[in-house]
Amino acid sequence: MNLVEHTYEVDGVRLTGFLADGSTSGAAPGVLVAHEAPGVTNHIKRRVGMLAECGFVAFALDMYGQADLPLDAAREQSRRLMADAALMRRRARAALEVLASQAHCDASKLAVIGFCLGGIVALELARDRAPILCAVGFHPGFKRPAGSASEAIAAKVLMMIGEDDPIVPAEDRASFVQEMKDAGADWQLHVFGGVGHSYTNQDIDAVGYPGFGYNVQADRRAWSLMLALLDEVF
Amino acid sequence: MNLVEHTYEVDGVRLTGFLADGSTSGAAPGVLVAHEAPGVTNHIKRRVGMLAECGFVAFALDMYGQADLPLDAAREQSRRLMADAALMRRRARAALEVLASQAHCDASKLAVIGFCLGGIVALELARDRAPILCAVGFHPGFKRPAGSASEAIAAKVLMMIGEDDPIVPAEDRASFVQEMKDAGADWQLHVFGGVGHSYTNQDIDAVGYPGFGYNVQADRRAWSLMLALLDEVF
Repeated sequence: MNLVEHTYEVDGVRLTGFLADGSTSGAAPGVLVAHEAPGVTNHIKRRVGMLAECGFVAFALDMYGQADLPLDAAREQSRRLMADAALMRRRARAALEVLASQAHCDASKLAVIGFCLGGIVALELARDRAPILCAVGFHPGFKRPAGSASEAIAAKVLMMIGEDDPIVPAEDRASFVQEMKDAGADWQLHVFGGVGHSYTNQDIDAVGYPGFGYNVQADRRAWSLMLALLDEVF
Repeated sequence: MNLVEHTYEVDGVRLTGFLADGSTSGAAPGVLVAHEAPGVTNHIKRRVGMLAECGFVAFALDMYGQADLPLDAAREQSRRLMADAALMRRRARAALEVLASQAHCDASKLAVIGFCLGGIVALELARDRAPILCAVGFHPGFKRPAGSASEAIAAKVLMMIGEDDPIVPAEDRASFVQEMKDAGADWQLHVFGGVGHSYTNQDIDAVGYPGFGYNVQADRRAWSLMLALLDEVF
């Protein structure tokens, strides 16, 4: 599937996302893809292609203005976003507008999926009551950016974590559950036993972080769960 | 789908299950269905029919020798099973053999699904290393029958609970997770937010137990998750 670079601007910062148009006839639902801490990587681009192959218009957003960052730079960029929920929301919403405005995208059928940090971005769009039907997280973080307001959540929420994920301590999981209850959300939490962080990312094992690891079975199961929810909401 | 009564005996007790043969050509995978505390009800028979419509040979086991029991009798029957893991295993294994011996059942492709108490029965078959490829629980209990031995679990385990299920306290959930880890199992736990006990049972609302309730959305999502796992293992 062909990916097309698409540049947009938020607060004077130039951001570069990637579009793939899987529509066949008429308008297709749109899926926004929120990247992990390193920014838009090949892993994220593959997912955009996979979504287009399923018939969606997909767009990989760019939260940074820089792609595929080394560890230190990625940490600095994600720290900045986690310190400022309003900034995270502005950048994510701008990308959602890019997606919604595509000629073949049905703007009444939008969803967001995110990986790791992108799971936080997906949840933040749901908290901000952006016009998305669902927010899906693959090995998402459950920490909230500073200033993230709690409101009723209308989007359906599906978060899928590895039981052994070192970045999701039990107290974060409990906070997430409590928040979803307070927000009256339609939420689901799926836990994969024996699975760590970044289980969808085929390139992660080469990095060698403890507790991070690709898991082909969890990857497939999570993707299938996401497709079932997209099918439900679209 | 036509259901056929099938009688079998364990330790001199006559048990009555229900078979539905959904095979089309040659042998089809077999799915054993373990009932809730009241025994084989219309809800359980519907599920057997639904599985046959998916192309499986399905069999509703009978753990009691009595069907569709009123509350007190159901409590007494399930108490007896929870007091004796060996009895639970013998009765469940006998039913699995009935299923495996059906002319159109591929005995190398067996699975068990269970509802409430039946989730415990499904897990007990997995613990007993019965020849099943997966054990699936819909609003299962996580208590273990007395004498239930802990061994390595080879069957894939998928348990799907409502966050608000009053029969699954947090400590039971934690015990389940710990047991699965100790057993080296391939396990998944799915949590439906805002959902109580017996969410698959259309007849439960008439009963009016606090914390019990049918939930059409959780019912559909759980069924779809089960089908995905059956598809994976068969």
